[in-house]
Amino acid sequence: MVQAKSWILAKHFDGFPKDSDFKLVVEELPEPKDGEVLLEAAFLSVDPYMRPFSRVRMKEGDVMIGTQVSKVIQSKNPAFPVGRHVVSHCGWRSHAVSDGTDLIPIMPNWPQDVSLSLALGTIGMPGLTALYGIEEVLGLQKGETLLVNAAAGAVGSVVGQIAKIKGCKVVGSAGSDAKVAYLKDLGFDEAFNYKTVSSLEEALRKASPDGYDCFFENVGGLFSSVALQQMKNLGRIAVCGSISTYNDGTPQTGPFPHLTMIFKQLKMEGFMQSRWEHKHPESLKRLMAWLKEGKLHYREHITKGFENMPAAFMGMLQGENIGKAIVAV
Amino acid sequence: MVQAKSWILAKHFDGFPKDSDFKLVVEELPEPKDGEVLLEAAFLSVDPYMRPFSRVRMKEGDVMIGTQVSKVIQSKNPAFPVGRHVVSHCGWRSHAVSDGTDLIPIMPNWPQDVSLSLALGTIGMPGLTALYGIEEVLGLQKGETLLVNAAAGAVGSVVGQIAKIKGCKVVGSAGSDAKVAYLKDLGFDEAFNYKTVSSLEEALRKASPDGYDCFFENVGGLFSSVALQQMKNLGRIAVCGSISTYNDGTPQTGPFPHLTMIFKQLKMEGFMQSRWEHKHPESLKRLMAWLKEGKLHYREHITKGFENMPAAFMGMLQGENIGKAIVAV
Repeated sequence: MVQAKSWILAKHFDGFPKDSDFKLVVEELPEPKDGEVLLEAAFLSVDPYMRPFSRVRMKEGDVMIGTQVSKVIQSKNPAFPVGRHVVSHCGWRSHAVSDGTDLIPIMPNWPQDVSLSLALGTIGMPGLTALYGIEEVLGLQKGETLLVNAAAGAVGSVVGQIAKIKGCKVVGSAGSDAKVAYLKDLGFDEAFNYKTVSSLEEALRKASPDGYDCFFENVGGLFSSVALQQMKNLGRIAVCGSISTYNDGTPQTGPFPHLTMIFKQLKMEGFMQSRWEHKHPESLKRLMAWLKEGKLHYREHITKGFENMPAAFMGMLQGENIGKAIVAV
Repeated sequence: MVQAKSWILAKHFDGFPKDSDFKLVVEELPEPKDGEVLLEAAFLSVDPYMRPFSRVRMKEGDVMIGTQVSKVIQSKNPAFPVGRHVVSHCGWRSHAVSDGTDLIPIMPNWPQDVSLSLALGTIGMPGLTALYGIEEVLGLQKGETLLVNAAAGAVGSVVGQIAKIKGCKVVGSAGSDAKVAYLKDLGFDEAFNYKTVSSLEEALRKASPDGYDCFFENVGGLFSSVALQQMKNLGRIAVCGSISTYNDGTPQTGPFPHLTMIFKQLKMEGFMQSRWEHKHPESLKRLMAWLKEGKLHYREHITKGFENMPAAFMGMLQGENIGKAIVAV
């Protein structure tokens, strides 16, 4: 028997999430039966998608959705011996019992000197999102110019670096001077703080006077309307996120994009990494290879303590993190 | 010497076009020089694109842009003998002198019993727009469900019929009961009058409870926001026109599409037929073959008299036409 803690959605978010929307519950978990394992969370992920998905994938009283790196601490399943680490989709839980079907083993030959928390970041869902957005959605070509916003985030920072690996010019937008400095460190050609530039339009034009071939969209809202005008003819937009609109009570509105899309013949595509799940093993290997070759750098913003998950989540939504926001138990 | 009339853009449109925005001018044209021909307009096209393009392709005092079927009435260019018909991009002109480089001969073997005006409609730019939107942008597949709005117009009516030829379910929206009846005659599976349905959302859901694989967008604005919600996962949207927003003084606004595009992984692409100009000759042959086989029907809304071009244009923008709006000289 183990005491398991979990964070439930006590109340659907109304606008920006607040402490009272979450509730910590404790329960006794039974011993695993034959074929089952008992998992203990090591690292938990807080991601922007949890905010919009709370409406469509959860009801009040459900455990918050999410992914974690867990350690097998009891096992009656030979495929997952005690001590083994896995990626689990069991949500915001300190412990869970699983029959193994929903568990993803950590990639074989994970290097000793790379934190397993990266399986939730650069060598996990956010890294895959960056890779597929660039290769499958944008079809980014050498020599092209790419714009990415929320560029210092878990996805954006990988996007910019992969685009550099592919021989592109990369422009990044982020929300603090420290983030902008980080983007420059990562090799972004141009980076600016969208909160302090006098005009987003001018900042985008100055960073790439010829416009943008590709735009990796993480922010949505008014940023999207301004950026649309700076796309080149036949430009492509990968719509990955829309964080500036996730906490709207009343949906924000903006000018319709159609006329610009016609004049410039733009393509805009929403996507989720799960569409290319069959490619995940190969893709994770590529990401890890870039990491080991020193071509892909990362930062993590680590919050300690399972009890701080709501604070870590809300901080991430406010842009407190540089790189991937992680909770370490 | 010939007296040539032309309609100029006297004043940039501010909101819906009005008579005083146009001015008829008359000039004497010189005799064609060596290599030149003198053209006389037979049929002129009025198209929705002229409204938004007036801002980006014209300045006050310019002749209105547009395409016409013209007859060669004097020739010093052996490639275009007297009596030959051509498609010309010379704009709203009764006569013009051309060196031939901007002229497109009418398709070889044009059937005697098919009006040459169709070179401005079903066997011309609007027909090509429909075909490329379906094949190159949407990649419409047999068995899929397609939505098209402004469905009784020059493009929409061809879109629906090609989709039927391809074995799809077709739903059309139009702005009058007469248009809806016409769509049913054309073989549309479902059609409704968007002006009289109590709820566009319900009308779309009733016409296809499972949603839409593809959406051929001619209208934009609020229609687009409602239709977006009814797309199936991985749905595709070909953005061809946005007629509901062309006459906005202040741009209309609507909810940002990003979150829906992500959840449903939708693709949305703006396009113009000119992108596939290299395919035009082959494509026109295919359209003509369908027409001769009785698979592609058409209607024209013909206004008589060059002096009535502004009225024909404004009437088309108000949706007076079923099928292609044409001015016959």
